[in-house]
Amino acid sequence: MSTVIHHETEISVDPDLPVVRITREFDAPPEKVFRAHTDPDLVVQWLGPRGLQLTVEHYDCRTGGSYRYTHADADGEYRFYGAFHEVRAPERIVQTFTYEGFPDGVSLDTLTFEDLGDGRTRLVTSSMLDSFEGRDAMLSSGMDVGVREGYERLDELLAS
Amino acid sequence: MSTVIHHETEISVDPDLPVVRITREFDAPPEKVFRAHTDPDLVVQWLGPRGLQLTVEHYDCRTGGSYRYTHADADGEYRFYGAFHEVRAPERIVQTFTYEGFPDGVSLDTLTFEDLGDGRTRLVTSSMLDSFEGRDAMLSSGMDVGVREGYERLDELLAS
Repeated sequence: MSTVIHHETEISVDPDLPVVRITREFDAPPEKVFRAHTDPDLVVQWLGPRGLQLTVEHYDCRTGGSYRYTHADADGEYRFYGAFHEVRAPERIVQTFTYEGFPDGVSLDTLTFEDLGDGRTRLVTSSMLDSFEGRDAMLSSGMDVGVREGYERLDELLAS
Repeated sequence: MSTVIHHETEISVDPDLPVVRITREFDAPPEKVFRAHTDPDLVVQWLGPRGLQLTVEHYDCRTGGSYRYTHADADGEYRFYGAFHEVRAPERIVQTFTYEGFPDGVSLDTLTFEDLGDGRTRLVTSSMLDSFEGRDAMLSSGMDVGVREGYERLDELLAS
């Protein structure tokens, strides 16, 4: 029986820029939430929705590193890749992101880990797309389900 | 005596996005212009304004690679770094860019090499900043001098 508390995941857009902003609190300190993003053995346990199998080809989360992984279910495979522009422990990660099904689309994602005290962290992910159309395509892709479920899985990992 | 023709470098902004777009033609085919961007032994011969010494710490221009270099003159050193999100020869490079003097500023740069035929190439570089203020800071930084002089040096390298 799980006693893990799941906080709300807020997804909002910017009026002036093609940015999607995701805000989520976690009941764990920044160092621990940060490590769950940088250690591939942990990432593989929570990233993405339930019901998809994550296979990491490589995940070298350091400034100048890169990643490539596949989400798969019975319907098919979804491949993603990007580069880590900056990894500044335990406060900030800047990385690029592309879904191979739309190879010319790129987002620049900035993750900020804010220490709320009392062993709590606010994570804000700001994804900048290269157009408002790209932003709307991202919003209508069902990404919100994957984000919410992924963060619930991350809650469970952090509590374990 | 140089007989190299220098084409105009056009620098423009987007009305809706914090993007700086740089357009420049070269009298060389895409493969050759592309290679001058990916081979560090060539990059070091043209990137940046005249009068600055470029020192490459590393320049691993492949999908998932990264770079770090320093421009120096008598007044000081200027360090830059970023990651290569995608290197798709000979048509497209997507990379991140940060000037260490402003470490939280990041641009996402997309370089497109268009084959104009007759051994000519149009290079379009689209730099997306994370705010309109960041874009204006980039425009007022004197970057235009470095871009124009760098491309004149690239003309000379391509003609040699």
